[in-house]
This record gives sequence, C-alpha cells and structure tokens, in this order.
Amino acid sequence: MTKTIAELETPCVLIDIDRVEANLKRAQAHADANDYKLRPHIKTHKLPRFAKRQVELGAIGITVQKLGEAEVMADAGLTDIFLPYNIIGATKLARLKVLNGRVTLAVTADSPDTVAGYAGAFADTERPLTVLIECDTGGGRCGVRTPEQALALARQIAISPRLSFGGLMTYPPLNGASRAESWFREAIGLLKRAGFEVPVISSGNTPDMWVTGDSIVTERRPGTYIYYDRFQVQQGAGGWDDCALTVLTTVVSRPTATRVVLDAGSKSLTSDILGQVGYGLVMGTDLTIKVLSEEHAVIEMAAPSDTPRIGDRLRIIPNHACVISNLFDTVYLISGDRIVDKLPVAARGRVD
Amino acid sequence: MTKTIAELETPCVLIDIDRVEANLKRAQAHADANDYKLRPHIKTHKLPRFAKRQVELGAIGITVQKLGEAEVMADAGLTDIFLPYNIIGATKLARLKVLNGRVTLAVTADSPDTVAGYAGAFADTERPLTVLIECDTGGGRCGVRTPEQALALARQIAISPRLSFGGLMTYPPLNGASRAESWFREAIGLLKRAGFEVPVISSGNTPDMWVTGDSIVTERRPGTYIYYDRFQVQQGAGGWDDCALTVLTTVVSRPTATRVVLDAGSKSLTSDILGQVGYGLVMGTDLTIKVLSEEHAVIEMAAPSDTPRIGDRLRIIPNHACVISNLFDTVYLISGDRIVDKLPVAARGRVD
Repeated sequence: MTKTIAELETPCVLIDIDRVEANLKRAQAHADANDYKLRPHIKTHKLPRFAKRQVELGAIGITVQKLGEAEVMADAGLTDIFLPYNIIGATKLARLKVLNGRVTLAVTADSPDTVAGYAGAFADTERPLTVLIECDTGGGRCGVRTPEQALALARQIAISPRLSFGGLMTYPPLNGASRAESWFREAIGLLKRAGFEVPVISSGNTPDMWVTGDSIVTERRPGTYIYYDRFQVQQGAGGWDDCALTVLTTVVSRPTATRVVLDAGSKSLTSDILGQVGYGLVMGTDLTIKVLSEEHAVIEMAAPSDTPRIGDRLRIIPNHACVISNLFDTVYLISGDRIVDKLPVAARGRVD
Repeated sequence: MTKTIAELETPCVLIDIDRVEANLKRAQAHADANDYKLRPHIKTHKLPRFAKRQVELGAIGITVQKLGEAEVMADAGLTDIFLPYNIIGATKLARLKVLNGRVTLAVTADSPDTVAGYAGAFADTERPLTVLIECDTGGGRCGVRTPEQALALARQIAISPRLSFGGLMTYPPLNGASRAESWFREAIGLLKRAGFEVPVISSGNTPDMWVTGDSIVTERRPGTYIYYDRFQVQQGAGGWDDCALTVLTTVVSRPTATRVVLDAGSKSLTSDILGQVGYGLVMGTDLTIKVLSEEHAVIEMAAPSDTPRIGDRLRIIPNHACVISNLFDTVYLISGDRIVDKLPVAARGRVD
C-alpha cells in the first residue's frame, strides 16, 4: 500500500479524515445545542463509511437523492433513509416498495399525480409509505407553491390507506431561510387548523444549518458540511482549514512565465461555477484555475515565476465538493500527508 | 432484455447507432476526399466497439487523452494510439514504457523537462518512443509558443537515442484553423531548413475537420463528430438530425403551468455551457433547460401548457456530448426506439 500522497498518481481525490471528523462533530454539536435533528445528505461523499459515522455521532438517519443511492446505503446497513424526490413510474415504484420493506423510509410528493402513484403502488403492501410534502419556498425547483396546495396533498395522503403523512420539506433558496420559515409557519397553521399533525419540518443545506435562529424546522439535511468547498467558504459556512476534499494534481506544462497547466480538467473538477471566479483554488495560495478543459486546468499567475515547476504537485479546493465524488471511482483517505485508506465511492454514478 | 426505450429507467444515455454509422462514414469520406488521415479522439465515446469501427472504416488509429484511456483501448485490441499529453512522473513513465511495448504509440512534449523525462525513462528500452511537439497556435493551453522553441525541442528529441521525432501537433483555437495553419507553415519551414523531416502535422476538433481548405495538416483528431451535440450544431459542424447521443429523462414535477422539472441534473448532463444558453435542448422542440442542479433540470416554457405531463419522457441533446460519456457506467445503443445493446463505458473515469 502506498504510504504518502507523494506516491499517488494524479489526478486523484484526497479526503482529510481529521477535518472530516472535526466537521461532523462540530455540526452535530450545533444541532444538539440548537434543538434540531441532523439528517445529513450523503450525496456529498457517497461513502457508506461516512454515512455510518454521521449516524454514530448522532444523526437520526441519512438523506439521499436517488433510489440507487438509497439502495447502496441500505445494502451497507443504513436503516433510516429520506429520499426527497418524486418517484415516478412503475419500475421505480416497484424498487421503492422493496426498499420500504427493508429500511425506515420516507419520500416526498409535490403533486396529486405523484401521491396517486404512491397510493396505487403501495395499496397491497403491509408497511405504509411515509410521504412528506415538498414545498417551493422560493427555490424555484420542485414543490407545491402554496400552503393550500400542501393541505390538499396532505388530505390526499390521509385518505390513502397505505400512505402516511410525514410532514413538510423544502430545499430553501440561497440565503432564503427566513422566507422558508414564513412559508412553513403559514402552511403549518393551515394544516393544524385542518386537524393535521406535522411531525417533521425538514430543511436543507449547509449555510442555513449555522443560522437557525428561532426556527420551526425540526430536521436539517446539510451535505457539504462534511467536506466544505470554495462555495461554502464564500458563503461563510466554513473556513479554508475546514476543507477536507482536495484534488491532487501535477503541473504538466509551463508554456509561459505566468501560465501553469495542471493534469486535472472538468473530468476531475466539473464545470460547476456556483458564483465563483474560476474553477477551484490552489490550496495554500491565492491562485485560481482560470480555464478548464476536459483534461487540463490553466492557471494564469499575476506575476512571472519559475515556480511551480513541471512535475510539482498542487492540491485544488474545488468550487463544489459534491460533484467531485461523482467523478472518481475511488478516493484516498489521508491524515496529514499519510494515506490511511482507499475507498470505492460506492454510490457514485447511481443516477436513477 | 428490455426491448424499447419506453421500458428504460431514467435518466439514461441513448446512442442512436444509425446516426453514429452515418456520422463516421461521412467524416471518413471527407477525410479521404480531402487527403488527410483521420485519427478520431475516443474521449467522446470511450467505447472500444466504436473505436474499432472507426478504424475499420479507415481511421489510421485513435487518439486518447489519458494513459488510462490508452490502456483500456490497448486491452480491447486497438493497435495504434496517439496520446497528445505531457506524461510526467516516474509511475506514469513506467506505464508508458509498458504501453509502448504493446502498441504503436506516440505522445507529445512541449518542454525540455518533458522530453528529458521521456529520454531518461526510455534509455534502456528497445523500441523508441515517438514524440510529437505540441504547439500553442492560439489555444492558450499547452504547447511551445514559437517555431524556434519547436526546433529546439526537435533537436533535443533527435539527440535522445531512444526517442523519435514524430512531427507537430496542436489543439487549435476555436475558429482558429487559419491561425494554426500559418503557425505550422512557419515552424515547418524552420524545421526543414534545419534538416528535419516532419512526418505528421496533426490538428484537432470537429468543426475544423469540415473546413480544411488548402491545408498543410496531415492528420486530424476530431472526437465529437461521432455524436455531435448542441455546441457542434451551433458551430455548424452538424445538424440536429446528426445528434446521436441523447439523455432520456422523465418529467417528475410540474409546479406551475410553465415550469417542467426533469430527473436529470448536472450528474447526468454536466454544467458545461460552451457558449450556449441553458444546459441542453429537448429533442424535437425549442425548449431548453434553464437551471440545473445535481439531480434536477428546470425548464421554463414561454407559454402555459398542460404538457408535458408528470411521467412523460423527454430526450435531451446535451451542450457537450463528450462529458456525458464520463458520467454513466453504461449506455444503450438504439435504432429508432428499439434497444440494440447495452454497453459498459469501458474508458469512463480513467482520469490518470
């Protein structure tokens, strides 16, 4: 087994396990102190080992975004899974039934069609399916648009014998926690007046986790807080020293005194911008990647320099950590410069 | 085996083999008629079957971008491989030596350091390594910047006993074929006056392949011409009916009368923009994807409509086909709506 990162071929993904452990503990402590449950989104790491660690440290379960991810995590022994997605079509509903027989499961719906699909598919099952209603609190993606629509869906769920109303969820707009909060308060008022209990009020994302205030939210689904990244640092959710995922690269060309070309392109870093300038930061410097093609990253330095030289290795803090985990079959766990383990990214590429 | 695409789970990648076959034949005929060799870049498909078909139809060999891709293609029986990349570091050079013993291979260099690395690593081998000089003809990535630098590298290669000077190559700037052409002509003049033969003059990309004019280029390395995509259509390199790769998706939400949400996000389509507006076109319509998150695509229609409905399936022509092949473990080959085969994407994820 390779002993230090100097021996690794590039590009490859390094995960600093000391930072991971600190990030997980700090978030769990914050959740405990602020009276909300943590249900981490595993899309960021896609690794059963870290999902289990999150639960060991106090998370009530995990969040996944696709059935395939849920299946991988169930296979690995995770027992409480939230899949905040409209599951559509006969084949997927059949997979969902199998999964609901194996783990404590909840899904979402944002339309009568989706609820009707669940009701039909689960009509002959013993174990009911828990359904939360997805609410568009300003994010402009999925979700019912008004509290009245939420109430109508709750009623449809309530009259479906094998469905159970699990509460409300949202993926809030960026910096929109207070908007989501007002939306939820209005909807919950309406639901309670109609006789509904709302057991779970679930919201998302790492930046919001730290600015809970006097919140009605009972459960939060941050993902990136395990690794952080350039976007999260810009959002103030974490610092550079919290960034646990880096892409190790090699300088392969120095065509000019200011240009540095690395062997990691969009196939290693993705084209995700997320409001940043450039495609990632060289760790420990203020150098950013200016241009990215599939297999090359181009850095233009402000002043001419002999360094970095061809063959030097640079670690890149990506704009967006989650998408990196979907590109690599394996990641290296490190402590300092020492390699601790090499893990297959078990839930990588589970697109459906 | 599933018989038609109606039975497939989404999102998934469909490859229209009739369009592939027509695209390959048209390009080969153009190469033959215009007196250049075709050396297709397999990064677009990453499939040994299509690489072999390209060679069967007349390509002189293939191009790959990473050692790992070359190894997969060599394992699959491809025998003539060009790897236009600076191969840096002891481990990669050791892999390169093994590969050079197995297939007809050529690599590139753009610096004395890279050439010195090759010369050192290959000093004790029987079979020389063919090295082309990469030239920056305006693309601003790798490559020597002046014909004089090219001559100096050619001399360094010439005095290295186990290296063989293979010629010049470039990845030309977009719409920069004539600029590349002038650069090459000047460099070749210089090299010839210094006594060098320049056996290969290699240029890239699909749009340029069709506008060769009176060119000095002997070999072209287009990749995307096998599938085409939204960018290539915008560039005029092909038409919508040539687009062979689509992503099959399902409508999972209709939150408003104009908003349509699909189950394919950046994990299926990537965030590549390539100068387009939006993240892909719905095949057979003028609808484009406005917003992409990891697992959702959002379309905003110009006018309210009941259709498409939840559960309907849409095929997306992506902005950039090549990067899609790096996201999916398998692709479906189709003829019309009929599924002909399901192939593992053998060279997917070969990042190093």
